[in-house]
Amino acid sequence: MNHRLVANILGYILLVEAGFLLFPLAISAAAGEADWIAFLKTAVICGVLGMAITRIRVETKQMHARDGFAAVALSWLLLSAFGALPYVFSGAIPHYVDALFETASGLTTTGSTILTEIEHLPRGVLFWRAQTQWMGGMGVLVLFLALIPKIGDGAVFLMRAESPGPIKSKLVPKVGMTAKILYGIYVGLTVLESVLLRLAGMSWYDAVTHSFCTISTGGYSVRNASIAAYGSVAIDWIIIVFMFLSGVNFALLFLALRGRLKEVWRSEELRLYTALAVGGTLLICLNLYVRNGIGFGQSITDSAFQVVTVMTTTGFATQNYDLWPTFSKTVLVLLMFTGACAGSTAGGIKSSRLLLLGKNMQRELKNILHPRQVHVISVDGQRVEENVVSSAGVFFFAYLLILFVVTLIVSWDNVDFTEAFSAALTCLSNVGPGLGALGPSGNFSALSDLSKVVLTLSMLLGRLELMPILVLLFPSIWKRKV
Amino acid sequence: MNHRLVANILGYILLVEAGFLLFPLAISAAAGEADWIAFLKTAVICGVLGMAITRIRVETKQMHARDGFAAVALSWLLLSAFGALPYVFSGAIPHYVDALFETASGLTTTGSTILTEIEHLPRGVLFWRAQTQWMGGMGVLVLFLALIPKIGDGAVFLMRAESPGPIKSKLVPKVGMTAKILYGIYVGLTVLESVLLRLAGMSWYDAVTHSFCTISTGGYSVRNASIAAYGSVAIDWIIIVFMFLSGVNFALLFLALRGRLKEVWRSEELRLYTALAVGGTLLICLNLYVRNGIGFGQSITDSAFQVVTVMTTTGFATQNYDLWPTFSKTVLVLLMFTGACAGSTAGGIKSSRLLLLGKNMQRELKNILHPRQVHVISVDGQRVEENVVSSAGVFFFAYLLILFVVTLIVSWDNVDFTEAFSAALTCLSNVGPGLGALGPSGNFSALSDLSKVVLTLSMLLGRLELMPILVLLFPSIWKRKV
Repeated sequence: MNHRLVANILGYILLVEAGFLLFPLAISAAAGEADWIAFLKTAVICGVLGMAITRIRVETKQMHARDGFAAVALSWLLLSAFGALPYVFSGAIPHYVDALFETASGLTTTGSTILTEIEHLPRGVLFWRAQTQWMGGMGVLVLFLALIPKIGDGAVFLMRAESPGPIKSKLVPKVGMTAKILYGIYVGLTVLESVLLRLAGMSWYDAVTHSFCTISTGGYSVRNASIAAYGSVAIDWIIIVFMFLSGVNFALLFLALRGRLKEVWRSEELRLYTALAVGGTLLICLNLYVRNGIGFGQSITDSAFQVVTVMTTTGFATQNYDLWPTFSKTVLVLLMFTGACAGSTAGGIKSSRLLLLGKNMQRELKNILHPRQVHVISVDGQRVEENVVSSAGVFFFAYLLILFVVTLIVSWDNVDFTEAFSAALTCLSNVGPGLGALGPSGNFSALSDLSKVVLTLSMLLGRLELMPILVLLFPSIWKRKV
Repeated sequence: MNHRLVANILGYILLVEAGFLLFPLAISAAAGEADWIAFLKTAVICGVLGMAITRIRVETKQMHARDGFAAVALSWLLLSAFGALPYVFSGAIPHYVDALFETASGLTTTGSTILTEIEHLPRGVLFWRAQTQWMGGMGVLVLFLALIPKIGDGAVFLMRAESPGPIKSKLVPKVGMTAKILYGIYVGLTVLESVLLRLAGMSWYDAVTHSFCTISTGGYSVRNASIAAYGSVAIDWIIIVFMFLSGVNFALLFLALRGRLKEVWRSEELRLYTALAVGGTLLICLNLYVRNGIGFGQSITDSAFQVVTVMTTTGFATQNYDLWPTFSKTVLVLLMFTGACAGSTAGGIKSSRLLLLGKNMQRELKNILHPRQVHVISVDGQRVEENVVSSAGVFFFAYLLILFVVTLIVSWDNVDFTEAFSAALTCLSNVGPGLGALGPSGNFSALSDLSKVVLTLSMLLGRLELMPILVLLFPSIWKRKV
């Protein structure tokens, strides 16, 4: 890789993190809490280090795909490593491995937590916790691209490596402008949801932090009982709608804003995503009716909330679904795999990949039936390149392979199989809660340090869609190459 | 499809089944059991029906891939449907859905059972149960090809559709001769193991039935406690070795018989298979030592037995692994996916596919690192065609998709998630026992009829490697086409 260029980018990322730390610092100071100093210390460390690194002279700005991947992977590792410091300095999470887990879980918008008790924590710390999710949702490098007007032709590689989905589309020809539009929609949704939650009865603090964690599909809450603490159907539905919107490809939201609704609804991915959300909700309603005698009217809000929160990989809770019948739990586990749409803030495999894989399977069968015909794969009326189909297959295999290896490592802790499997899946898909002791009313504190580190890595693997982290395993990427 | 030709093949398959029914009939009569009449009745039904169908005049012998797939899928459905009759007629398994499950579990060499008590069953019935596994192990259509000297050029399609693996290799140019060699090795191994088990102290009846269920990697036993009933380390190791051999590609066994051992050991699939078996055994030994304080010397036989029996998808038991720590169970669950080698009698995804998928993943990463180089995939020094790689990816996706759908359906019974998942996996991979109440000391009797039917279909899907059954879902295959 181009060492100097990558180092340069990492330096800027540390400066961005230093900037972000000023918000919880302000909240903390305003609330008269003593731990504003923890944020100051971290901000100074990031700032000084960032300044020092950005002074390294970049010999050539030439960037290749590998440099983009490496820069993104290392940025996220660095953001997690330094983002954990305020927890340790403030004493909120004294053990560094726990703090690292909590930070990576925030940045990757996973939302799994090692905290057993949330409400007693200082407001500044909880604000930082929510804000890490907002930082990670749309991506810190995308923000960097939106802020820095021109960093060279390589910008596109950074964008590609950080944004999710099998096909990366630029909204407009310029990368910087695309990044600005994405952040515009992102900020807009956050503001709109904050206002609506405030109107529905939350305090401004609760409304903003929950909006941070909705639009980023993160799922951290400042309340122990998560959204259930408010007991408000209006709040439930506001959050359902905004979680769902945040799971839609932002390119489609951009089209919708420009009034091109017909094109939006033509999207096969959006249709599959909607069908899975509606289908999952109805199946759970049916199961709750047959097993527990709960009518559809009574269960629809809870079912829809849990389906959408899991599918968009947010991970809020209004019900402890771990107490539901197995069928309902299995529906949720399967939706943890699918995730939402490409180009959204959600994790998981993504509906568009499943669409491609399903069509590829159908083609294989058609080839057996009609060997002389040529069968191509199209999505939204456009032919998909074979290498995109192949990459989706590789992604699916790698995803499952990592899932199983992580399950195996976590199972060494002797938690039961369902717990180990759901922990690996929920972290890799960036959902948040798992099943059993790791379910919506539990937490990850009891796991060993080994499991926590491995799950931290899984969250990063999932958020960056595997490849940027995996390429770091090849020794050849570390060689100097411009 | 070519209706008349497919019907003709189905007729012959029924005649083969009628022939096979004569063995349990003889055993039953010799033991003075009253239910020889159940075998006679079924044999007559199969015989008369088979004769009638084979009299349909075939207009053209021209066969296409689709006809091969359909003929194989329908043959297996028919073999299961009629093979279940002796259980019902004899009263051994009065409920037809249960009998169908037990028969399909036999033919597909799965070995899952709905029986709660085995030893009180008549000898003829237990012989039939073991023999269904032997019939299915190498494949009934392969036998048919070995027996019928010439059925036209289409033979190769039947062979391809029934034998497992991503690349189908003929051992010798002629399909009929290939089938004869395969059955030769199959019979040879069965005889050899029977003699060794007899020498190690089993009765001839026990030795032969257990050999049937070892070489076919089936796993049915005539004893309630399975192999644990004999409490003999010699017997354990004889069965470990023969299970392992039956999981090797028979083309390699053929090479080995001809003394070409160097070529055998050059096989990357064999190396991966061996590495997984040895690695799995050592990991379980380590886990049992750390968690339960059991020394390696004491646990090695049980670990090796359970690893090899699960990996070769046999499913015998010498230990109730459900009582082992979670890590050991997870190792076994992961080996249920992998299965053994292509071209063996084992189920699962197969090591060769995993090898291809792993190499494809590596290539994707190399393409990021070195985009200007061309990376091809080779196995055993030979370049693999892109469509073979692609098919392996499709297979992997379809396998997981079916696994998850079946898990969902079984979970409706409200068994716990681990049970539902392991039931779906063990049936799809043709292993036998699952976890929890469906583990080595449990059985499948408590599941609903819906689950039993769906699991029966999964076993057939797994045994025939998905595609032959899946093509039946396309309406166009049912149209008359010659």
